Amino acid sequence: MELFEALYTTRAMRRVRPDPIPDEIVDSMLDTAIRAPSGGNVQNWRFVVVTDPGLRDQIAPLYAEAFETLQQTIYKRSWARAHETGDEAALRLMRSSAWLAENFATVPMWLFVFSRNDPSGASIYPAVWSAMLAARSHGVGTCITTILGVFKSAEVFKLLDVPTDKGWVLNASVSCGYPLGRWDLAGREPVHEVSYADTWGNPLGRMIPQPLWEG
Amino acid sequence: MELFEALYTTRAMRRVRPDPIPDEIVDSMLDTAIRAPSGGNVQNWRFVVVTDPGLRDQIAPLYAEAFETLQQTIYKRSWARAHETGDEAALRLMRSSAWLAENFATVPMWLFVFSRNDPSGASIYPAVWSAMLAARSHGVGTCITTILGVFKSAEVFKLLDVPTDKGWVLNASVSCGYPLGRWDLAGREPVHEVSYADTWGNPLGRMIPQPLWEG
Repeated sequence: MELFEALYTTRAMRRVRPDPIPDEIVDSMLDTAIRAPSGGNVQNWRFVVVTDPGLRDQIAPLYAEAFETLQQTIYKRSWARAHETGDEAALRLMRSSAWLAENFATVPMWLFVFSRNDPSGASIYPAVWSAMLAARSHGVGTCITTILGVFKSAEVFKLLDVPTDKGWVLNASVSCGYPLGRWDLAGREPVHEVSYADTWGNPLGRMIPQPLWEG
Repeated sequence: MELFEALYTTRAMRRVRPDPIPDEIVDSMLDTAIRAPSGGNVQNWRFVVVTDPGLRDQIAPLYAEAFETLQQTIYKRSWARAHETGDEAALRLMRSSAWLAENFATVPMWLFVFSRNDPSGASIYPAVWSAMLAARSHGVGTCITTILGVFKSAEVFKLLDVPTDKGWVLNASVSCGYPLGRWDLAGREPVHEVSYADTWGNPLGRMIPQPLWEG
């Protein structure tokens, strides 16, 4: 797959089929992840590939609870606003997120990503994104989620036998499966609204066609 | 460029020529960055493209000080060990990092990346990595650095006129320029040493050729 096709069309694919993902694709995701740069090249990461149905069944209620917490706290206002204003894109995202929370156990694979000594996340999320881009090229949809690490870290560590005295942090749980939807270009605020030249607020001073890549 | 070539060969390219980067490439980097996923699709990011020589001259000493702080603290032990054991890869990285600190002002472009409401970094580093991959495909070398945000945030905010009361955080300063070195596959600990099946320590149970992609 061409680089820009992957970079422009790897949107969050939460709704997936239960069909398993072949080992070759899992291996490609992992081997791609570890090629990403990390600060001082320390590669302080671990990847746990969760496919066991019993384990997924046990983690599912934790995810559902974490999602409910997110809904009642951080996202409460945004969802209320989306309902009021009828913001269709936001409502779609909300429904899609709810689908994932309700169907956690049917998602065939979850990639749990751990790191340590990386408070900023700069050394782990490039690797996570690389794994997701590799998955995309194999037709596997992914979605990066962080709520298990934020709200249910202790419970997940216990279920996955993660040592608690070595400084490991759960950075992401990435859902992986063959998508029910189709790949396409996600809508974004254009570059000129979020980019400046040299100093904050100083426009780039040129028009950039949106999007620059159209396949 | 093929996706896996970019994902496997985009290593940190700190030593770069002073030649400017054409606007079209900068635009491609920015437009690719904003296609990355962010939590709740909030796109809470800003990109400041610093090319002005006067500004680079002003930020350079801040970067040098931050680098010195890093050397005296976090990296002190690892560098000492690298010297003792003659770990050539670590010593190369150290020399390369020192080059960047000494030549900050000659690097033709620095991409300063800001975000807010993203404590984990999960919503900003995929965008940063996307910009770096886009740069790679255009022959531009990059290196993600975080020390200005960690040690010199207030000073950088002042120089770049960043508002201090809106919750913005400096996540990364990415050096950008045409590389003096060549692209190649970076060495990594193999997948089987950092990946598990279902639970921590449980091997994947299969051999994965390293690397899976060889161009």
